[in-house]
Amino acid sequence: MPNSHDANAQTSADMECARNCASIDIPIVRDFLHDGRDAWNAKNKVVNILKNDPVFDKSRRPFSTRTELYHRALRMTKRIFELQDLYNWTREEVSLAQASLDDQLPIGLHNIAFEPVFFSQGGPHLINKYGPLITSRGILGCYLQTELAHGSNVSRLETTATYIPETQEFEIHSPTLTSSKWWIGSLGKTSTHGVVQAKLILPGGHDVGPHLFLVQLRSLEDHRVLPGIVIGDIGPKAMGGFAATDNGFARFDHVRIPKENMLSKFAQVTDDGQYIQPPHAKMSYGGMLYIRANMVTSAGWLMAKAATVAIRYATVRRQGELGPDGLERQVISYPSVYSRLLPILSHAYVFIKLGRKTVDAFQTMASRLASGDTTLLGEMHATTSGLKVMVSMTGVQDLEVARRSMGGHGYSAFSGLGRVYADYLPSVTYEGDNFVLDKQVVRAALKSYRNLFSHRTPSADNLSPSSYYLRLLLNSTPKSLPVLNDASWSDSTIPTLLLEWRAALIVHQHAKYASDPDSTVNQRISRAVTDAFVGVQVRNMMSSLDLPEKDAVVVGKLYLLYLLTTVEGGLVELLSFGVIRPATGNMPNDPTRSLRMTIERLCLELLPNAIGLTDAFGFTDWELDSALGVYDGKVYEALWKCAQEEPLNQTEVSEAYEDLIKPVLLRGQRMASAATGRAKL
Amino acid sequence: MPNSHDANAQTSADMECARNCASIDIPIVRDFLHDGRDAWNAKNKVVNILKNDPVFDKSRRPFSTRTELYHRALRMTKRIFELQDLYNWTREEVSLAQASLDDQLPIGLHNIAFEPVFFSQGGPHLINKYGPLITSRGILGCYLQTELAHGSNVSRLETTATYIPETQEFEIHSPTLTSSKWWIGSLGKTSTHGVVQAKLILPGGHDVGPHLFLVQLRSLEDHRVLPGIVIGDIGPKAMGGFAATDNGFARFDHVRIPKENMLSKFAQVTDDGQYIQPPHAKMSYGGMLYIRANMVTSAGWLMAKAATVAIRYATVRRQGELGPDGLERQVISYPSVYSRLLPILSHAYVFIKLGRKTVDAFQTMASRLASGDTTLLGEMHATTSGLKVMVSMTGVQDLEVARRSMGGHGYSAFSGLGRVYADYLPSVTYEGDNFVLDKQVVRAALKSYRNLFSHRTPSADNLSPSSYYLRLLLNSTPKSLPVLNDASWSDSTIPTLLLEWRAALIVHQHAKYASDPDSTVNQRISRAVTDAFVGVQVRNMMSSLDLPEKDAVVVGKLYLLYLLTTVEGGLVELLSFGVIRPATGNMPNDPTRSLRMTIERLCLELLPNAIGLTDAFGFTDWELDSALGVYDGKVYEALWKCAQEEPLNQTEVSEAYEDLIKPVLLRGQRMASAATGRAKL
Repeated sequence: MPNSHDANAQTSADMECARNCASIDIPIVRDFLHDGRDAWNAKNKVVNILKNDPVFDKSRRPFSTRTELYHRALRMTKRIFELQDLYNWTREEVSLAQASLDDQLPIGLHNIAFEPVFFSQGGPHLINKYGPLITSRGILGCYLQTELAHGSNVSRLETTATYIPETQEFEIHSPTLTSSKWWIGSLGKTSTHGVVQAKLILPGGHDVGPHLFLVQLRSLEDHRVLPGIVIGDIGPKAMGGFAATDNGFARFDHVRIPKENMLSKFAQVTDDGQYIQPPHAKMSYGGMLYIRANMVTSAGWLMAKAATVAIRYATVRRQGELGPDGLERQVISYPSVYSRLLPILSHAYVFIKLGRKTVDAFQTMASRLASGDTTLLGEMHATTSGLKVMVSMTGVQDLEVARRSMGGHGYSAFSGLGRVYADYLPSVTYEGDNFVLDKQVVRAALKSYRNLFSHRTPSADNLSPSSYYLRLLLNSTPKSLPVLNDASWSDSTIPTLLLEWRAALIVHQHAKYASDPDSTVNQRISRAVTDAFVGVQVRNMMSSLDLPEKDAVVVGKLYLLYLLTTVEGGLVELLSFGVIRPATGNMPNDPTRSLRMTIERLCLELLPNAIGLTDAFGFTDWELDSALGVYDGKVYEALWKCAQEEPLNQTEVSEAYEDLIKPVLLRGQRMASAATGRAKL
Repeated sequence: MPNSHDANAQTSADMECARNCASIDIPIVRDFLHDGRDAWNAKNKVVNILKNDPVFDKSRRPFSTRTELYHRALRMTKRIFELQDLYNWTREEVSLAQASLDDQLPIGLHNIAFEPVFFSQGGPHLINKYGPLITSRGILGCYLQTELAHGSNVSRLETTATYIPETQEFEIHSPTLTSSKWWIGSLGKTSTHGVVQAKLILPGGHDVGPHLFLVQLRSLEDHRVLPGIVIGDIGPKAMGGFAATDNGFARFDHVRIPKENMLSKFAQVTDDGQYIQPPHAKMSYGGMLYIRANMVTSAGWLMAKAATVAIRYATVRRQGELGPDGLERQVISYPSVYSRLLPILSHAYVFIKLGRKTVDAFQTMASRLASGDTTLLGEMHATTSGLKVMVSMTGVQDLEVARRSMGGHGYSAFSGLGRVYADYLPSVTYEGDNFVLDKQVVRAALKSYRNLFSHRTPSADNLSPSSYYLRLLLNSTPKSLPVLNDASWSDSTIPTLLLEWRAALIVHQHAKYASDPDSTVNQRISRAVTDAFVGVQVRNMMSSLDLPEKDAVVVGKLYLLYLLTTVEGGLVELLSFGVIRPATGNMPNDPTRSLRMTIERLCLELLPNAIGLTDAFGFTDWELDSALGVYDGKVYEALWKCAQEEPLNQTEVSEAYEDLIKPVLLRGQRMASAATGRAKL
């Protein structure tokens, strides 16, 4: 127990050593993750400008009120446009800048909800009139869908838009308290305009269901709320999440808007109040799918953040047993730590790359849809629903697993992951609550299943890529199941096949019992089907890694770890369907042990590259904003420095001492004196 | 789609209807949960005083800064002592008052850490001198153990206490940055004194490891920090948790304290610097076990809060498909909702009652320990370690499952569960990190196993209650396994036996492979062993429910639900060890279906009593502080009312408009005009 050992100095030595251990070529893997050197350079250029600009400083953020955080977000928004003018940034560079911030800017809702909905559903006249202003942010918008009493069931929204033929106007109205628009990002204090979803009521009271209307909310002269509208912020979110966003409410009291303000690319109303049907009922689904498709990559980058921070901390934190170097072991060397963190790293590598493929697939579908071809829509809907559930659940869980792996210090706000968690948490309930989306995945799977077996001679040729796993049912006997041995886990073939068998058998069982389901079956099916889909994608990615051999070997192991831990997560079904079976004979005989021992060995093989693989994400300290995830490993210095900024530390004696602490002490001292007959200390 | 339907009015009608549905006698079940009418009355009396006192108002809490929340906590602390004087409250009533608050008061650390450590480990002289002041809160204390670089490994703490025979003093010193005490609750701005854990260095430099010392930190005259000490608050915690507590840091620069300030009930130092060994190495373990034993009940009450809020909201929220009444279905009626919420209710009922038994067992052990009998210590250490891991993990998870079940509105701070979650989150890492405690459980299980089989004729007579499940291994052949059929799930016998088999077989397997473990085996063993222990307790509680028959039937079903969902959680091991087996023959053949269908039926049978069973917890709206969990069901009115208080709503136009929003709009309008050649709108 050398007294001279300096635990603080050791941290940077450990980090340097771990960095030197990496066998991968970090810049090459970094370019691979960013889809090429050019894309990395573009991002890096923008980040370097922001991180050195005081407007984007994060040091006061942990101590700020919501109002201060909202103002800060506006200040950053304004500054990004100034930087755009200064550096002649393209639209893409502005997007990169906004995406590199870990604050939820109010303008984000203009970008991902208002603007896309407006342009995809507005008619030519409206786009001509408002399009340039929307593109240039001369007006700022929000998207008013959710109400107090209705979220996922859009068809029951209560807000009305009644057509008045006499004046060629719509009257937007909130008939009840529960019809108040609620949760609308950027509505509370920022937006000048909004796209309002409201039931379209035609003359005679005919209700043709929800449609979209552009409504001006605030004056462009002085930002005051327009007459007949009540608007406010809905208050703070759980655990301080989305603090900088002014999620708002709105009530409309018979507010008139011109007829031209209906978004009428698809459905239309004639001047005399006749309804013109949209050419295709699903034409307007694109927006939701676009957001879900994009969630895959963004979840991957959040997992990357979690993995980077937690693996760095676990590398420099030493605790417990003594290791071969005579020092306490690095925490990363404990099985209970690396078995939690390396799977997160594997998720990040999978979802960053899978997200790109998903967005590409979406673009293909969208361009076909634009020409009236809806054939790919169903498949895209099913896969993005399943992927949305998976990445949001996994992402939220990974952020917390990573935070928790950091023990006590992980609970400090300065660890940084708590803030990211709180901001990402609503992803499991927004853009379609996960439990609602699970049902969509099950419905699609069942449809494919029934479609397959409705043919006289069922054939795999009729299966779409996302339901191709059902081919296994065409020849499903116990003999057709893969035979497992220790070598089964050494490449992607068997694990992927097991995931497909799991999906096929659970869908097959559900088809049999669909009228008498147990209460969690949708969740299990959705997961199994999506695991199989992603498993096949990962297997394909492994077979075509665009990397030099030595780096491909390491990344390939990470992908294999993904597959094996996914199989481990599916053991209940694999075992209960008899796909994996305990060997008969003396007990106990655990067929899962060889899987788990392979995972264990794989982790040990990956460990020397853990820091290298996280460095390859290319995060700056400014982006991570974590005292425990600093690049140089000096976590204790960073924690100390952060703590000194705490407002409570700005006076030696708390300003509450005289009124609130002293009276308690004096009372106690009097009581003690009375009880003992002694004077106070 | 009747336009006249008022979703807001429906909420209270639905709540009233659900309340009328209950078949249980709510006051009787309430008394059962509170261990008798007297205990309920005592708690109720205190709560009624607090909830009507403006000092304990919670309406401004969501909008307060940490400094304001800290001051508020001090104000409440002071007020409780005033109320004590006013109403002649006993110590127990003061404890009830502090426990009924959902804020983490700084004085909580005096109560649960400083005071118990001082009295259990201080020598007679020190207790005589400081005891009365500590009891009366004439001094306020904290417990300084954790340091920046060391938490769980106490033996490597760096702070030193060097004995100086010449002056009969100890010198407390922080030799390094990393030896700074860190995370110490109530240290930052409040405490006048602290018990410091430091390595005792005897003359000649002999280090005899960590010991405890009473150190005055702040002046009793003016609360200034004493010379040689640097103290501060460590800053905010993740997600705003523990905001009202001033977790602090401290560094000591050769601070002298009198020799008598060593806590010397066990180990002592003579005047000339000789070390006197404690009579028994484990004599000082009591405190940690006490805290862990108490965590079971307190976790139960948190689960009760989560269940109450979420079940109430799910009862009044209607969404989606139309039900038989022509309205959208109550959300509680969806399998994906009740299958998440009723297990939480069952956890609450189990842990509230199990916690009492655990504390009783602790008291028995403690009184034996006081007379030098350490026989029960090992058993208590093993069971409380396992229980602590289980209740903290389950509690954190249940709070989030409940919050998430409330969909979008669950993410509002006004849902109330986010705050409870953030405060409870550190329970998985404090008082022994769960992953460290898992190892202790495994060690104890392995010891019992080896002890059993070290006898020539192993006999169950040698097994302690917590390892009694190992008896199954004395006759373990495939034939001795329980034979399962649909009826197996109808009472507690088979489920409990399955949990015991699972524990026995996983320990048996681990004994075989202990030198070559996989990386998650400790977590799985710890869980299996604790599940078996709790399962047996639940079975015993079911057989002696102190309730009238009609109430016992319902509570019994809730306990059975606990057992069955626990079996479901253990399926991987039960299947992989062949305890539950897929029937051979055509595939697929899922042996878990009958278990799941029984859970499903049990849930449906419990549903009509869901509101009654949560009402029986007896929470007031003041205690829950949740807009979604209000007793009368009027959740939309409550949300609306809360939102109006948001500080951002106090001005119609944001004060940031002129400087931060307007310039962006004007820039955009100029750009749009330039692009189109049109004047602005």
